[in-house]
Amino acid sequence: MEMSKIGRTPNGGVCRVALTDKDKLGRDLFVKWAREARCNVEIDKMGTIYARRSGSNTGKSPVMVGSHLDSQPTGGKFDGVLGVLAGLELIETLNDNEITTEAPIEIVSWTNEEGARFSPAMIASGVFSGDFTLDYAYSRKDKAGRTLGEELERIGYKGMLEVGNRPYTATFELHIEQGPILEAENKSVGIVTGVQGIRWYDLLLKGKETHAGPSPMQYRKDPVKVLSDLLPKIYKLADTYGPDAKVTIGYVDAVPGVRNTVPGSLTVAIDLRHPDDASLSMMHKNLEDVIRKIDGKTGVASTLNEIWYSPPVNFSQKCIASTKNAAEKLEIPAMEIVSGAGHDAVYVSKVAPTGMIFIPCKDGLSHNELESAKKEDIINGTNVLLHAVLQMANSGVLKKQDIFKRAE
Amino acid sequence: MEMSKIGRTPNGGVCRVALTDKDKLGRDLFVKWAREARCNVEIDKMGTIYARRSGSNTGKSPVMVGSHLDSQPTGGKFDGVLGVLAGLELIETLNDNEITTEAPIEIVSWTNEEGARFSPAMIASGVFSGDFTLDYAYSRKDKAGRTLGEELERIGYKGMLEVGNRPYTATFELHIEQGPILEAENKSVGIVTGVQGIRWYDLLLKGKETHAGPSPMQYRKDPVKVLSDLLPKIYKLADTYGPDAKVTIGYVDAVPGVRNTVPGSLTVAIDLRHPDDASLSMMHKNLEDVIRKIDGKTGVASTLNEIWYSPPVNFSQKCIASTKNAAEKLEIPAMEIVSGAGHDAVYVSKVAPTGMIFIPCKDGLSHNELESAKKEDIINGTNVLLHAVLQMANSGVLKKQDIFKRAE
Repeated sequence: MEMSKIGRTPNGGVCRVALTDKDKLGRDLFVKWAREARCNVEIDKMGTIYARRSGSNTGKSPVMVGSHLDSQPTGGKFDGVLGVLAGLELIETLNDNEITTEAPIEIVSWTNEEGARFSPAMIASGVFSGDFTLDYAYSRKDKAGRTLGEELERIGYKGMLEVGNRPYTATFELHIEQGPILEAENKSVGIVTGVQGIRWYDLLLKGKETHAGPSPMQYRKDPVKVLSDLLPKIYKLADTYGPDAKVTIGYVDAVPGVRNTVPGSLTVAIDLRHPDDASLSMMHKNLEDVIRKIDGKTGVASTLNEIWYSPPVNFSQKCIASTKNAAEKLEIPAMEIVSGAGHDAVYVSKVAPTGMIFIPCKDGLSHNELESAKKEDIINGTNVLLHAVLQMANSGVLKKQDIFKRAE
Repeated sequence: MEMSKIGRTPNGGVCRVALTDKDKLGRDLFVKWAREARCNVEIDKMGTIYARRSGSNTGKSPVMVGSHLDSQPTGGKFDGVLGVLAGLELIETLNDNEITTEAPIEIVSWTNEEGARFSPAMIASGVFSGDFTLDYAYSRKDKAGRTLGEELERIGYKGMLEVGNRPYTATFELHIEQGPILEAENKSVGIVTGVQGIRWYDLLLKGKETHAGPSPMQYRKDPVKVLSDLLPKIYKLADTYGPDAKVTIGYVDAVPGVRNTVPGSLTVAIDLRHPDDASLSMMHKNLEDVIRKIDGKTGVASTLNEIWYSPPVNFSQKCIASTKNAAEKLEIPAMEIVSGAGHDAVYVSKVAPTGMIFIPCKDGLSHNELESAKKEDIINGTNVLLHAVLQMANSGVLKKQDIFKRAE
């Protein structure tokens, strides 16, 4: 709640967009808190913050907990922030109870997860995993033409540490679900087994711009009429490959987009998702077939351009097992779940054993000022995180009563 | 061709949208030409331009010729402009031949005919006829939130003259057909007997804004999915009430309009037309039924707002007769035709005897950068306009050889 005062919006949300002055204030507050918790803080060349609590075994790589502090322009209080501050809570709990872990524990806050200002999203964890170069990241521009590199420097968060090549025993990201499943299933915690695959398309329908009045229907080349044939077939993909298949059409842009003119062309944004790559490939082929079959029959030319493909990710079995074990030991109602959204954990999982923990958010709302989460679920999620981390950071597993007694 | 240089687009069309800087330049050029033709120019409070050539009989109301100078965003060189500049050509011909008419002749250029920027279309002639108040017109906003009143003032065309209460002996609007019929029938001129009826709607589909990833399909309230059910039913109206029925969907606006978000709401622009009012009423009822049946079944609220209704119009018998007479006298191939599009002449016809003259346009294309018309048809149409005007402006009718000799 303290962090959410920085960038608070009139409707109770948060606007703390990456590398703005508000983002700097949020980072400063986190760094202050981390130092107060006796962590050693480092900043890398992408502005990612690493706050480390030492372990007793100098030969053991740290266990990472983390997420991000940046928000959408009209974002909420929990997306990202939860995973960073839960790390801090976890370390403060260990401090208060004078527990020393074998492996160090490190809180990480990634730069520009949201991608709301600089595209692509999750760029800092993407540089960390080697998917993007540092130069590429620095050259990304916002709508005003300022580069990510300039803005990192401006807010004083272009650090000295090289990005990547930083081994971890395990990594965990606690996050709100951003969907309605845990709430509907009445579970307090989701054991995330992976992230579904995503394919993005621009469908271009090119007809003939015509005045709405004089042209008889049979003379028209109306892309909206073609869309009316296509839409049911595109949504049908979700039924055919369901219930895990998702079909989203975020917008239909008509040119010229005037009430009394048959549009000359339409651009339709299509987003297909599936946790299983074979099914996602079938959806892709099926979509191509649907478009191919309609093309040419109507005088309207159809072109399907795939613009992004992110294959499904499976998280580390040992991270999943330790999370599940923690929830069982704490008797917290939990279920396995697949993440629908992308997260820094996707890139991190390429270079370290990785898991995620979800908690429910009210009405499944996220990227929204009304985003909310229950205190009870936050406590449960953070406790599961704590126990999962302790299992990985220590050779053995603490008994339930050890932590619970000490934490009370 | 000179006028079409103002706002010329790379594809040879024109972008001279109402009350933009380009519109101002177009108006300035027309006013300059009208003054050079010794017309007295007045501007009314709606920015409509009146350029009057005096007559010999001070007791006789003028004959109006006119149309509009504004264009669609990707419009053509002829839509509107033809009717204004033909008026200028007509007056210059009378000047060159030293002909004085009994009634004055007045060229009128109406503000915001297209409605591409400020809805509704034909707003200035609508205020002129008393269908809209001046305050209503001033308060219309464009997508950027600027009002018509502010923009009129900004370009310096908010005149002093009160709108309306301006008697005319007769009025004529020469316009391209904006449809394929005259070209298909190989006629150079269309004697317009009336205008088909038009009904405009905003269909609002209100669902729930949701992240594209995490929400299973069955939890979604997706307005695009509802649209996929509705579109085929809306287009079916054209088959049911065809072949004169027309259904156009100019745009689908999604909010927030982001690729990875199920839109919270959609606004769908629907345009229904029919020359027969009873059929148009049936289409209206049928559309209401289609929307009512879908509402509530999907978690998406559907609201159909009718925002404009223009009943079918029958033009003045004496204007139709004088136009037909002119075409016959000049031996120009002509036919009767019903206008598919709305025109300022529709509002004007409520307060003055009104007629329209069409000429063919290439491939029936209009509201399109490729809009084109043959020089031969432009000359024929303007000559029919001239002779129709002369019949109404003078007590008698000039003989064919009088004008032809003088004009050569």
